[in-house]
Amino acid sequence: IPRSALKVHPIARGTALAALATSAIALAPAALAQGKESGSGVQVFGLLDIGVQALKASGTDTRYFVNSDGNTSSRFGVRGTEDLGGGLKVGFWLESAVSVDDGTSGATSTNNKDSVSGGLTWGRRATVQVSGDWGELRLGRDYVPSFGNLTTSMHPFGTNGVGSSGLMFYPVPANGTTARTNVRASNSIGYFTPSGINGFYGHVMVALGEQGPGPTRKDGDLQGVRVGWRNEVFNTSAAISRTRYATGNYTQSNVGATYQWGPAKLMALWGRNEVGITSTTATMLGTQYQLGPGELRFAYTWLKAKNIASDATHIALGYVYDLSKRTALYGNIARIDNKGPAMRFNVGLAATVPGGNSGGVETGVRHSF
Amino acid sequence: IPRSALKVHPIARGTALAALATSAIALAPAALAQGKESGSGVQVFGLLDIGVQALKASGTDTRYFVNSDGNTSSRFGVRGTEDLGGGLKVGFWLESAVSVDDGTSGATSTNNKDSVSGGLTWGRRATVQVSGDWGELRLGRDYVPSFGNLTTSMHPFGTNGVGSSGLMFYPVPANGTTARTNVRASNSIGYFTPSGINGFYGHVMVALGEQGPGPTRKDGDLQGVRVGWRNEVFNTSAAISRTRYATGNYTQSNVGATYQWGPAKLMALWGRNEVGITSTTATMLGTQYQLGPGELRFAYTWLKAKNIASDATHIALGYVYDLSKRTALYGNIARIDNKGPAMRFNVGLAATVPGGNSGGVETGVRHSF
Amino acid sequence: IPRSALKVHPIARGTALAALATSAIALAPAALAQGKESGSGVQVFGLLDIGVQALKASGTDTRYFVNSDGNTSSRFGVRGTEDLGGGLKVGFWLESAVSVDDGTSGATSTNNKDSVSGGLTWGRRATVQVSGDWGELRLGRDYVPSFGNLTTSMHPFGTNGVGSSGLMFYPVPANGTTARTNVRASNSIGYFTPSGINGFYGHVMVALGEQGPGPTRKDGDLQGVRVGWRNEVFNTSAAISRTRYATGNYTQSNVGATYQWGPAKLMALWGRNEVGITSTTATMLGTQYQLGPGELRFAYTWLKAKNIASDATHIALGYVYDLSKRTALYGNIARIDNKGPAMRFNVGLAATVPGGNSGGVETGVRHSF
Repeated sequence: IPRSALKVHPIARGTALAALATSAIALAPAALAQGKESGSGVQVFGLLDIGVQALKASGTDTRYFVNSDGNTSSRFGVRGTEDLGGGLKVGFWLESAVSVDDGTSGATSTNNKDSVSGGLTWGRRATVQVSGDWGELRLGRDYVPSFGNLTTSMHPFGTNGVGSSGLMFYPVPANGTTARTNVRASNSIGYFTPSGINGFYGHVMVALGEQGPGPTRKDGDLQGVRVGWRNEVFNTSAAISRTRYATGNYTQSNVGATYQWGPAKLMALWGRNEVGITSTTATMLGTQYQLGPGELRFAYTWLKAKNIASDATHIALGYVYDLSKRTALYGNIARIDNKGPAMRFNVGLAATVPGGNSGGVETGVRHSF
Repeated sequence: IPRSALKVHPIARGTALAALATSAIALAPAALAQGKESGSGVQVFGLLDIGVQALKASGTDTRYFVNSDGNTSSRFGVRGTEDLGGGLKVGFWLESAVSVDDGTSGATSTNNKDSVSGGLTWGRRATVQVSGDWGELRLGRDYVPSFGNLTTSMHPFGTNGVGSSGLMFYPVPANGTTARTNVRASNSIGYFTPSGINGFYGHVMVALGEQGPGPTRKDGDLQGVRVGWRNEVFNTSAAISRTRYATGNYTQSNVGATYQWGPAKLMALWGRNEVGITSTTATMLGTQYQLGPGELRFAYTWLKAKNIASDATHIALGYVYDLSKRTALYGNIARIDNKGPAMRFNVGLAATVPGGNSGGVETGVRHSF
Repeated sequence: IPRSALKVHPIARGTALAALATSAIALAPAALAQGKESGSGVQVFGLLDIGVQALKASGTDTRYFVNSDGNTSSRFGVRGTEDLGGGLKVGFWLESAVSVDDGTSGATSTNNKDSVSGGLTWGRRATVQVSGDWGELRLGRDYVPSFGNLTTSMHPFGTNGVGSSGLMFYPVPANGTTARTNVRASNSIGYFTPSGINGFYGHVMVALGEQGPGPTRKDGDLQGVRVGWRNEVFNTSAAISRTRYATGNYTQSNVGATYQWGPAKLMALWGRNEVGITSTTATMLGTQYQLGPGELRFAYTWLKAKNIASDATHIALGYVYDLSKRTALYGNIARIDNKGPAMRFNVGLAATVPGGNSGGVETGVRHSF
């Protein structure tokens, strides 16, 4: 960030035919606060991703969508950190999902069991955290340890678009258990090791469902742990999170590894989701490859299903073109094949023919603030 | 804006007996960012309008309200633009409705058919837009082209208060079709011409309902276009938007014209709403007249109904007094007369007597930030 | 605030393993705007309070919670004031509740009768206010006059945590009346006297339920008044708010007094809640005692119940340790004893045995921005 960025910036106005000429609070961009002065800052932040998508599955017509999140999950939030001195810091983070295509926000779960929606919630993250040389203690609604391996750090596409890791690495509901903790948990207490202890890192979490008395009173209680090691070219991590449900516990376990080989980051990911007596186990090989001003992405995943659904494969190719540090264009194409009689797996539109496939293509723009 | 406005401003605190003495993020007002430096800015913005209202209709008692939006629609939002260089810009806009009287937010529609409410949504607008010399491409939830002629640019009162254009120029639900696209559409792709091509301007939009398979699969799909021409004293525009619904399509078409004649802006607006086999056609003559430090507003509208409701007339008088660029006081008085046996049209309180009238008076304060 | 605080501050980033490296709007902390320059400011503000809690009641197992608001109510908001000159100011305030443990927001009531929830609402406060030498006029959703005496100004614990004044000083629903106006009212018009007229202060409010015609048409209509007097060591105030409900009116009346005696602020509070023919009357004696770098809190309350529930007592002890002006740690322990056969009163977990008790202990961190 050049120092000249510390100047006060004018408001850039969008063309809004119907908009009133109202005055507005103008916030200088991030650069303003990335100078060298010390102190405490607070941020209004976000990222919006919107594009167009065409999906076709066995037995269906092609369907078209104006869709959010083909590349990255859209969000709106407020966060900040206060320096308490002596290396101690306290911070907070409030983050909501945004569907740019229709203006809605995502759901949350108050008890790690039922979904709550209908308006803006800080369902992506709501935490207060205290940190020091000893690491970071974080309370509130946060990502579970085993989600860490499903992001773009270990999967070429992260959890977005038709190449999303979530299509094969998220759990399949079974026997009354719809797990709500494959990404985040509410009522959680988490601890992160300090960054950079000889390359090791770790994250442990306990979370409560806070159900009332009765046989389901432990529903939504979660314990999870993630340990990893990385250096400049290599990164590996293993994690497991277990959530109690009276209708069948949910266990998410995974191991990822990446290796930077010239312009290519080679990526491998193994993950299992157990829901009661069912399980799905997926293995992915892929890459993020620096190509010109952008990044080529490729992933091939095969999944073994037990007591539910059928085996399946997922192949995805994408490209992300950076217009600036804040803005990118992207395109993805992917296909899922259900190998058995089931039709469970798809890229957004389910097949209506046993063992059918599901394919999609999408392009969009991602903009962060 | 004087350059002295670029100084850092103190926090002006409201008198809050029960408020905690918390520290707070202080945002300098809009003036701060309207200096001459170039760059990219982001804004937290809004407008709040609240007042008191008395309504009386044939067969009812007078009712009193503390009410939002007598002059302008209350809103809260975040928006910004990034300059990508070479004349290319990317921007975003997230805007929610606010009911200042009770703290609720407005609804949105994910499929241009059903209403979604219950908390804050960015239902007023949620877009990412890319613009250049060639115009602007906008994706997300946005105003439909035919809404442009119902605002204060073509109607003295815009769509707010007892004089609102919406009372006569919005559609009447019929035969199961409740149109959700008379103002905005979700899942839209819009294109705006650059401003100032010999005075011509235009806006085209396609939007998707994204329904599942079946006979209603195209419900909520919209196409719209608006073309206009303006110079320093004259402005005219025609628009049409058509939305598919299995229960009867909805077409909104209108033509507006204004002429600045000394202190008076003379305004004329014609508009038709077709819902299936029904239609309502309204014609308005009115003015926004600069009078002292404020603006006098007058509008007279007559409506012809076909296969639904009855003919009606609407007469409205108002005054807006500017306390500053950001703040205004206003007062409105209006009356609607249903000409046939129906009781459909009203200023907020329906008559309970066939062919009855409905009248209202309101005063309030509008404040933007 | 030292002048050096007016410098631009860097962003302090939390450790977020899964977070994207997005740019962000950086807002300088409050200090930035507390310089001496005059002008108009707008703030994004908030407070987050989260901790752990253990509750045990007669006949129940001990239950554990990760819980918000043990010390202070969590919130997120936007507020500002514009100086119109001549001593006249206009301001606005939008404030939402936040449950830090799960990311949800609190409810509001549009008619002072029914609760509305499901996403972010500005249910804590949504107002536009105009102020001058003559006091302040405030319109919208705001605190009722009789709530003023239940805050930390008159009760050691205010309305939060296991020591909350709300446990004994809030109404008990009866005969179909669930009062929604013991804290705030929507559709309100309030007037506050200027601060510092010989130590006297006052607040009057009228609010409307805005129900439709019929026997419940006045439901939610409220009138309230609060008058008080204070000097440097003494503060006393009396208030009454009355709300109409067809199923039984609700009247909240109370008197509080505090006296600063060395390090101890001695506090006394009397309050009555009448719901139809029922009533509960509570009396509290307590203190906020400066002890080391923090504040010791103690309160003992006894309650008399009439035609509903049973008599009860509430004893609470707490400590608040300030890490900085923005951040504090706290701990509370409290117990409620139901004196008759009822089980109505509790600190968050009701007894399941007639006349049982309910106890809780909690510790947490409060952080404001």
